[in-house]
Amino acid sequence: MKSISKAVISRLPRYYRYLGELKEEGIERISSGDLSERMHVTASQIRQDLNNFGGFGQQGYGYNVSYLYDEIGKILNLDKDHSMVIIGAGHLGQAIANYANFEKRGFKVIALFDKNPEVIGKIVRNVEVLDIDGLENYLNNNKIDIVALTLPKEQATKIADTLVACGIKAIWNFAHTDLELPDDVIVENVHLSESLMKLAYNYGEIENR
Amino acid sequence: MKSISKAVISRLPRYYRYLGELKEEGIERISSGDLSERMHVTASQIRQDLNNFGGFGQQGYGYNVSYLYDEIGKILNLDKDHSMVIIGAGHLGQAIANYANFEKRGFKVIALFDKNPEVIGKIVRNVEVLDIDGLENYLNNNKIDIVALTLPKEQATKIADTLVACGIKAIWNFAHTDLELPDDVIVENVHLSESLMKLAYNYGEIENR
Repeated sequence: MKSISKAVISRLPRYYRYLGELKEEGIERISSGDLSERMHVTASQIRQDLNNFGGFGQQGYGYNVSYLYDEIGKILNLDKDHSMVIIGAGHLGQAIANYANFEKRGFKVIALFDKNPEVIGKIVRNVEVLDIDGLENYLNNNKIDIVALTLPKEQATKIADTLVACGIKAIWNFAHTDLELPDDVIVENVHLSESLMKLAYNYGEIENR
Repeated sequence: MKSISKAVISRLPRYYRYLGELKEEGIERISSGDLSERMHVTASQIRQDLNNFGGFGQQGYGYNVSYLYDEIGKILNLDKDHSMVIIGAGHLGQAIANYANFEKRGFKVIALFDKNPEVIGKIVRNVEVLDIDGLENYLNNNKIDIVALTLPKEQATKIADTLVACGIKAIWNFAHTDLELPDDVIVENVHLSESLMKLAYNYGEIENR
């Protein structure tokens, strides 16, 4: 398979979501035109993007939903299981631990950590909240693919150093800060405040029309 | 003030965050060079972006942190209060209701709604969880700027129609779906699964190096 551009890659999760919905609805094939209407993306963009995967989308047939869903899943690395640890077992950490969709896609939460004695020992979706003091030891003795940081920024910065020292290569960061990490550590940020600010800005524009 | 491009606007929340941190650290001015180092953005990009606001960033002085923070805040519409309602009082909804930073920036959660009798009546950060059956009536009798949807996609789609009918113009959507809404309704999506998939993809790339 030829290499796929970053721009296409960044659009794949959305294709994957729509194809998943079509599968759930029992739809086996779809034309680029129909998919275009659903996704509010031009049909030519869809053809350009999906033709990277070759072999589908023939004239008069359309795309094989299930096949394309699986192929995109493979590219997104979703055909493998990923072990995940959540640090910060507050509401946000628990929300993520409880999100069944992640597990369905192979993301298995195997531990939560917190420093608050009131939540340590609690069971969230069959997974125990462990004492943060044992984090380093735990990471050195378990294979963890992804760590989600759902804790305040001051703590996140410190913990991130521990994660790097323990060889963690993928961090899903919800803390309100940009972590300073070596180049071989991947970070995906979810900055909720920035998302809310964008909404506030656009809302202001609408009000002023 | 001349009009500011969309590209600049989309970068403003991040400037706002960094300027806020500088303020907290008691730093009164900063050069584009120092800010560049902190933010990992080129100094010329910073100058281009921030010169939109005029009057700051003179040679040898740098930027006035507090002034710039306030100006950007005004552009982002953060100098006004925004009333917010959260629909879905599960962990994610409660996480958002509890997030003090939002309140500090003028986003006031004034009600949560849920259909689950076990959470209805619960108090989250001084705000009561109300019965979803009363939503329409509530929206018709209160001025709500922003509605956060933190509930499963099947319910989100239905509720979104109610919101539009009640005149809501800004939706912060956490449901795993793209809502179909009129053009004059603003949506800001937070698709956590897509963020996690991006992380999985990039992690796979690192592993394969």
